[in-house]
Amino acid sequence: MQALDRLRIVMINTSDSGNIGAAARAMKTMGVSQLVLVQPKEHPTAKATARAAGAADLLYNARVVETLDEAIGDCQLVFGTSARLRTIPWPLINPREAASRVTNEPEGADIAILFGREDSGLNNEELRRCHLHICIPGNDAYSVLNVAAAIQVICYEMRMAALERAGAEEAQPNPDGLRDWDQPLVSSEETERLLRHFEEVLLDIDFFDPSNPKQLLTRLRRFFLRTRMDKLEMNLLRGILSTVQKRIRRESGSQP
Amino acid sequence: MQALDRLRIVMINTSDSGNIGAAARAMKTMGVSQLVLVQPKEHPTAKATARAAGAADLLYNARVVETLDEAIGDCQLVFGTSARLRTIPWPLINPREAASRVTNEPEGADIAILFGREDSGLNNEELRRCHLHICIPGNDAYSVLNVAAAIQVICYEMRMAALERAGAEEAQPNPDGLRDWDQPLVSSEETERLLRHFEEVLLDIDFFDPSNPKQLLTRLRRFFLRTRMDKLEMNLLRGILSTVQKRIRRESGSQP
Repeated sequence: MQALDRLRIVMINTSDSGNIGAAARAMKTMGVSQLVLVQPKEHPTAKATARAAGAADLLYNARVVETLDEAIGDCQLVFGTSARLRTIPWPLINPREAASRVTNEPEGADIAILFGREDSGLNNEELRRCHLHICIPGNDAYSVLNVAAAIQVICYEMRMAALERAGAEEAQPNPDGLRDWDQPLVSSEETERLLRHFEEVLLDIDFFDPSNPKQLLTRLRRFFLRTRMDKLEMNLLRGILSTVQKRIRRESGSQP
Repeated sequence: MQALDRLRIVMINTSDSGNIGAAARAMKTMGVSQLVLVQPKEHPTAKATARAAGAADLLYNARVVETLDEAIGDCQLVFGTSARLRTIPWPLINPREAASRVTNEPEGADIAILFGREDSGLNNEELRRCHLHICIPGNDAYSVLNVAAAIQVICYEMRMAALERAGAEEAQPNPDGLRDWDQPLVSSEETERLLRHFEEVLLDIDFFDPSNPKQLLTRLRRFFLRTRMDKLEMNLLRGILSTVQKRIRRESGSQP
């Protein structure tokens, strides 16, 4: 997707190469592929390759540079990630808003997101190079995400926004989770037939609450309507009900 | 937050204890604290504690059990995470929809989210214990998130939904990122005064485009309106404009 292709993840002075590998994996699972490393402590390493798992190609293709200018000089929009409040406030948004901005950027814009050191994040000079700061709203008691985990969250939001904009199925509401169901769901008429069948069986087995038969039926109705059965499930239930009826009628000596 | 307190992360047969530590950190940064380990390969380990960073308390408090029943027996709602499609489809939703369900659960409900093995995820028997399956919509070319990274994304969505429901500031729209700005923004009247001042200076320095003076002013106006200056920035600009005027008028011999 276009919005993800023009996105560049910039990791500055990363000291644990395992985090670079984990970042590559986080990026690739979300469809983001441009990784730029500014003065990594070590690169490439076997540790990074192991943590990258199926995303080792992103490590091989990573651009390694000496300065932030080389990393972002050609970008039209630069985000910095920061957990801390600085003395001069900078425009501060959450990852979802950042993703909305990225998908709405004019065509041709290159976009960088900066991630700082494991122990101290981005320094003030780096933060001042950014148009906007992104803050993942964390727990007041402990809000410091691992750098690769932060990259995972932000790339996830970028992907969700890109999927939504592309009208992709995965990003559309699907509250019941039934979108890709393999069976057609039952119609109102079929539900009514099932309920009548159920009521027959309940009569056959003398199950009615003598004080209030209607409430039982209403509860059953509510259950079956809420569950949204498919036709196969309905046929299964109808089969069970019929079998119960046959069995009971045979035992009581009546005709099937 | 209540919705996060009743949430339980269940990791099944985790083989790399580093992932347990990373999961603890992911959870704590998002305000989720209940971790249950079903037959972890090793626990506790120094590796896990190192990866947990400031979330080692979650490791100490983690409940270690032998069976899935012990982990989820008392839960009213159980989610499973799965990257793969199974032969029988199960209700399948994305993390955002799962979070919306969790925040809307009736009070008192305990909720579990199951995460499977690093190499093979949850098995079919475990997946069949779940009310709903959660799928993080990943890259078709490579969609296998690290288990701790998946926990980070899902806990992040749970936190965003809980913050939204609580009406918390961090989850409210803040498209310009100016919510916590330290200076009041300029009024329309102040902007007009600044623009008139700017126009004066442009006249003083003979900068007007002789063919189309209005277009230049319109572009300047559009720029300053788009930027949404604060009062301090405006005063700074007014000061610069005044200084330029004084300097020019002195040099051209006119009175200040």
